Amino acid sequence: MFKKILYPTDLSEVSKKALDCLLGMKGTGVKEVVLLRVINQSKAESISQYHQHMFPGAHLETPGKGVMAFLETVYRAQEEDARAGLAPFETALKEAHFKVKVRIERGVPQLKILEIEQEEDVDAIILGSHGRSNLKEMLLGSVSEYVIRHSKKPVIVIKR
Amino acid sequence: MFKKILYPTDLSEVSKKALDCLLGMKGTGVKEVVLLRVINQSKAESISQYHQHMFPGAHLETPGKGVMAFLETVYRAQEEDARAGLAPFETALKEAHFKVKVRIERGVPQLKILEIEQEEDVDAIILGSHGRSNLKEMLLGSVSEYVIRHSKKPVIVIKR
Repeated sequence: MFKKILYPTDLSEVSKKALDCLLGMKGTGVKEVVLLRVINQSKAESISQYHQHMFPGAHLETPGKGVMAFLETVYRAQEEDARAGLAPFETALKEAHFKVKVRIERGVPQLKILEIEQEEDVDAIILGSHGRSNLKEMLLGSVSEYVIRHSKKPVIVIKR
Repeated sequence: MFKKILYPTDLSEVSKKALDCLLGMKGTGVKEVVLLRVINQSKAESISQYHQHMFPGAHLETPGKGVMAFLETVYRAQEEDARAGLAPFETALKEAHFKVKVRIERGVPQLKILEIEQEEDVDAIILGSHGRSNLKEMLLGSVSEYVIRHSKKPVIVIKR
């Protein structure tokens, strides 16, 4: 039924529970997992705005200098972090003999998840009910809620 | 992973899609399905209030007469409807060699679903994203949303 599953993770505790669930699905027809980490674009931009505020003389236009270069450094560091963070997930899934495709994207997480859902034509999405903030008083994280509401495919929601 | 699944249905189109999904899960470790229909208590009570309004002379206290007897008739008719409505679901699941337990309950649907989730100690809940009203402008039905938020177990949400 669910041959190809999209598994977006922000490397939070709840999203790691989804990994256990996926591993438990071994031998149930799931063949391929698209492992997705979306780097929240707005975070890099906040850092760059801070940089611009601190160093108002820095130029946006000059390549290799100023805010753009700094932003590029931030982006690259975030991507390396994401790749390192996903590595144990990838290993665990591969050891369970799933075909794994790793995607690191940049954007608004919930929108990017829905975009990749379409692009990869997955059969279902598996995700944690909460992201990194995991506020006690929130019964459902905002990214998860948005994806559940707007996804075209079944969504398997793993609870904290 | 998901050996025992709770499948609440209001017999709506979206909830029937969940049946197809369950049937597709044949051979994936799912052994038992608890097929649940919750009769919305408030509906029977609305009918009885209407009856009371139309026949103000009818007594609540007299068994076999008046509003209570009428309410009992409504309840029984609803239960028969529910049983008849669930029959094709039960047959389809049994033909796919699932162990099936049929439960017809009365109460507030979302609360009853969560109560049965605990009572039956299921591994997951599968449900449609929308109920019978299935309003176009609503991205998620109110019962589904409540269950997703409050369930302790994974929820598989089937989209319309």
